[in-house]
Amino acid sequence: MVMPLNVLEKSINKRISLLLKDNRILDGKLVGYDEYMNMVLEDTEETKDEQVRRIGTVVLRGNNVVTIVPK
Amino acid sequence: MVMPLNVLEKSINKRISLLLKDNRILDGKLVGYDEYMNMVLEDTEETKDEQVRRIGTVVLRGNNVVTIVPK
Amino acid sequence: MVMPLNVLEKSINKRISLLLKDNRILDGKLVGYDEYMNMVLEDTEETKDEQVRRIGTVVLRGNNVVTIVPK
Amino acid sequence: MVMPLNVLEKSINKRISLLLKDNRILDGKLVGYDEYMNMVLEDTEETKDEQVRRIGTVVLRGNNVVTIVPK
Amino acid sequence: MVMPLNVLEKSINKRISLLLKDNRILDGKLVGYDEYMNMVLEDTEETKDEQVRRIGTVVLRGNNVVTIVPK
Amino acid sequence: MVMPLNVLEKSINKRISLLLKDNRILDGKLVGYDEYMNMVLEDTEETKDEQVRRIGTVVLRGNNVVTIVPK
Amino acid sequence: MVMPLNVLEKSINKRISLLLKDNRILDGKLVGYDEYMNMVLEDTEETKDEQVRRIGTVVLRGNNVVTIVPK
Repeated sequence: MVMPLNVLEKSINKRISLLLKDNRILDGKLVGYDEYMNMVLEDTEETKDEQVRRIGTVVLRGNNVVTIVPK
Repeated sequence: MVMPLNVLEKSINKRISLLLKDNRILDGKLVGYDEYMNMVLEDTEETKDEQVRRIGTVVLRGNNVVTIVPK
Repeated sequence: MVMPLNVLEKSINKRISLLLKDNRILDGKLVGYDEYMNMVLEDTEETKDEQVRRIGTVVLRGNNVVTIVPK
Repeated sequence: MVMPLNVLEKSINKRISLLLKDNRILDGKLVGYDEYMNMVLEDTEETKDEQVRRIGTVVLRGNNVVTIVPK
Repeated sequence: MVMPLNVLEKSINKRISLLLKDNRILDGKLVGYDEYMNMVLEDTEETKDEQVRRIGTVVLRGNNVVTIVPK
Repeated sequence: MVMPLNVLEKSINKRISLLLKDNRILDGKLVGYDEYMNMVLEDTEETKDEQVRRIGTVVLRGNNVVTIVPK
Repeated sequence: MVMPLNVLEKSINKRISLLLKDNRILDGKLVGYDEYMNMVLEDTEETKDEQVRRIGTVVLRGNNVVTIVPK
């Protein structure tokens, strides 16, 4: 069985895509996370309403996340 | 009696369909879950507003899930 | 006094009707539940906006439930 | 001082009226409750948008309740 | 320092005004409360959209309350 | 480092401005708070949609607060 | 691995940008935080609907935060 947090563990230093509750998408390199699925991304691109913005390092609160897709 | 987490246990490596709070539907092979009903799906198809998208492996936060249907 | 979870206990293997927060209605045979009122239904019919869909076995997250009506 | 759960205790086998977060009103005989204010009503009438429906026994999740009015 | 629950304590048997999350206002005599700020009001008047309704005794769930104003 | 609750401690008997989730603004003298950031304000002015109302003493539930600005 | 709270630790006395759930953006110098990601900012600028407002010191409740971007 693959525990959800194991997928995060194996994704460290790899790029992931996050869908947030407000439909924002964040693509970035996962460099850290905690047990609440708060995450730290680097080299992040945010997509909202077809608009893309580079936002570098981001700390993301886990309770805003719907899905996490490793790339 | 069939405990909710038992249904997940028996669905490991089988396809399930998830209805999310934002009306998104995820169909994929369940490969893992934890006690918060966070789940890991593989070979996932996401359906939203009649549009289907293949998104491969997904970690899903349990608090976004309304219903889980084993297939 | 009739504790809420007792009503679920007595409804095992009987049909119940669930009203969810998104106005969806699920009618099915209750085969299990846990202390969070997560439930497992079998032979489930889902009604939304007058449309009925048969969805078989369903695991339902308790925090989406408004009311539970034994039949 | 009258503790909130004492009012429920004294209302056992009496009719109460519940206002839910979605503006639904449930009138029924309170036959049980737990410490989360989950409740069991019997002979329940549900009113929504001026429409009244008899729904018999209902288990109600406490986190959907706004106010409880003993009758 | 005046702790929030102390204000409730001192308001026992006095009238208070509650603003709820759904913009409803409840004016009534506070006769009890618990540590979750669930409250019991007597001789309560509810105001919504300029309409006033007398509703007598009310148990109110604390998580629906925005502000409490002693009178 | 300045802990969030220290800012409240230092603001005791001083005026603060609170932005609530429903866009209401409360300006008042902070006279108390607890560990949930429930607060007691005195001489409070509430501003909503450009309308100002004097509401005197207010107990405010912390989970409705977005930001706290000492004045 | 970079824990989310470590990013806050390293950002002390540096400027960060916060996106809140209501789409408000706060830019300010982080001077403190706690384990709930409640934060204290100084020299804060708030941007909402293209309007910028200087609001000085702010205590921010962590549960309103979507993303934190160190600058």
